[in-house]
Amino acid sequence: MPFDDTFLRACRCEPVDHTPVWMMRQAGRYLPEYRAIREKHGFLEMCRTPELAAEVTMQPVDLVGVDAAILFSDILVPFPGMGLELEFCEGDGPVIRNPVRTFADVRKLRVADPIDDTGFVMEAIRILRGELADKVPLIGFAGAPFTLASYMIEGHGTREYLNCKRFMWSQPQAWDELLTVISDTVIAYLTAQIDAGAQAVQLFDSWVGYLSPRDYERYVLPHSARVLAALSGRGVPVIHFANGATSMLDLVLQAGGDVIGLDWRLDIGAAMARLRPDQAVQGNIDPIALFAPDDPLEEIVVDILERVGTRPGHVFNLGHGIHKTTDPEKARTLVRLVHEQSRRILSRV
Amino acid sequence: MPFDDTFLRACRCEPVDHTPVWMMRQAGRYLPEYRAIREKHGFLEMCRTPELAAEVTMQPVDLVGVDAAILFSDILVPFPGMGLELEFCEGDGPVIRNPVRTFADVRKLRVADPIDDTGFVMEAIRILRGELADKVPLIGFAGAPFTLASYMIEGHGTREYLNCKRFMWSQPQAWDELLTVISDTVIAYLTAQIDAGAQAVQLFDSWVGYLSPRDYERYVLPHSARVLAALSGRGVPVIHFANGATSMLDLVLQAGGDVIGLDWRLDIGAAMARLRPDQAVQGNIDPIALFAPDDPLEEIVVDILERVGTRPGHVFNLGHGIHKTTDPEKARTLVRLVHEQSRRILSRV
Repeated sequence: MPFDDTFLRACRCEPVDHTPVWMMRQAGRYLPEYRAIREKHGFLEMCRTPELAAEVTMQPVDLVGVDAAILFSDILVPFPGMGLELEFCEGDGPVIRNPVRTFADVRKLRVADPIDDTGFVMEAIRILRGELADKVPLIGFAGAPFTLASYMIEGHGTREYLNCKRFMWSQPQAWDELLTVISDTVIAYLTAQIDAGAQAVQLFDSWVGYLSPRDYERYVLPHSARVLAALSGRGVPVIHFANGATSMLDLVLQAGGDVIGLDWRLDIGAAMARLRPDQAVQGNIDPIALFAPDDPLEEIVVDILERVGTRPGHVFNLGHGIHKTTDPEKARTLVRLVHEQSRRILSRV
Repeated sequence: MPFDDTFLRACRCEPVDHTPVWMMRQAGRYLPEYRAIREKHGFLEMCRTPELAAEVTMQPVDLVGVDAAILFSDILVPFPGMGLELEFCEGDGPVIRNPVRTFADVRKLRVADPIDDTGFVMEAIRILRGELADKVPLIGFAGAPFTLASYMIEGHGTREYLNCKRFMWSQPQAWDELLTVISDTVIAYLTAQIDAGAQAVQLFDSWVGYLSPRDYERYVLPHSARVLAALSGRGVPVIHFANGATSMLDLVLQAGGDVIGLDWRLDIGAAMARLRPDQAVQGNIDPIALFAPDDPLEEIVVDILERVGTRPGHVFNLGHGIHKTTDPEKARTLVRLVHEQSRRILSRV
């Protein structure tokens, strides 16, 4: 099989014969083949063992037929290198045993060394580039400064961001230093991923949608913009996914990105009209649409593709991670529908 | 004290000397005076006992100084009258013992009679109008068709809406019948609240922000629009709060409402520019801002008031319910800041 670079061409707004599709969390619990490996290994162990990370990264490429692989890992993987005690507790998600609450806590953090602290990620990328040579491109990723800061301050996942926002508002100087050390870590980490062979990188700002536009503009945008600027011009597309931030898309666009990831809460056609002509878009089907019967699923897929029309620069994706109880057969159906229907629509050019 | 109708005048886009403010969930757990009563009574018992409902409704008027009272109740209160077995389990929130999953389940539902089934609500409103005669206006409320349907189908709160969306996509005719019987119930319920003395009503679409614009437009908008149209022209302002739907504001505006409630995820000034000149706006401070020190809280309040400027028709509110651990003193500070700063800004006219 020849290497299929449709995903990379769509990221660069070049013409394609079909719209490429991948799914956030595509290497994950909805696949029985993933669960079989996960049963035998801890989550962080899988992230830190290049052969295991590579194996589950390949699963959706081989089993679902997606047009890009995304490295199996977690956005919190750089935390120990920064001085944070990270654990994943079964069922409860990540816990940081020494959360950041004071200026002194911020001052104790260091910029993680991407090779010394997370060399296993680079090794997994090198393995995967070999395995993917005749298949599809490999995407690397990192968490965005706000999302990583929110975990550091809260110490775990939340829906409220009470400690995080209080810190941001009451200690703006400590906040800026915190986001600076995080940003430096993210820049070094993603640069190392690119050097190791990642052919695109995605910056996940998973929780930034809990901020008001004013707070995003003041406390987050300058940091995200610095990270995105530092990564641009390195020859690989940079995808910026600010989840839940669709009602402040103008600010997300100011922060930057070659490809703008969209959740499912806005009209992708209207969003696309606001991008630069050389900017691509990624999204934006409701992940729960994979629980619809095939006919309504097809209608939803066609609706998204028709809103985009024949404008180049669309990577099809879910608007959020694939749900863990999704039927893998439905994921395969989604890939087939996107390919079939986009070929039909794009042939109109 | 003379009756202060500033809230009603702002709803009607009439000039005011200060911006009125109230807070979603203002009669609630953050007040020790509320908790003292709640300790002795079940949640549904409080909703169903007019004297208790009236007592906690009055608390934020007297203790916090808000410019409007909102009836203490719950959006699920009409459920038993429709044939649904509703319980509130301590810590777990509402549970519907016989969730709606099939067309036959929909057909078993009836339009609740507002007097026979929820006369206690009308009685609480009558008591409150007496107690509020020399104070502030009283707001009634109901859940919007989508939000109520989501509880009926899921049987409890969720963040995924898996059953609800699957039902919507796979049984569109049953879905339409379901939303019709809900809408008929809501129209009768809010009409009865107005007849009993509610001086404004709010339609809470708390969870509609989990839908894509396409699904909102197709499966929800016609029903919300019918409810809002049926309530217009009854002499009281109708507030439409579609939580999380700020990136499909155009569709929310199509559905209608005299006052458009906004969560905190968008620029209130930009939103206001998209309203009709006779439409008012309600919002939109981040509820977590009540955990900021006073100085940044004041900056955030001023920022919102300045974005609105001197355009008439702004009701200040949180973008979501007040957090249960909020310090009541901070709620009082918010009211003071909104009053002081809006007097300053509005005096520019």
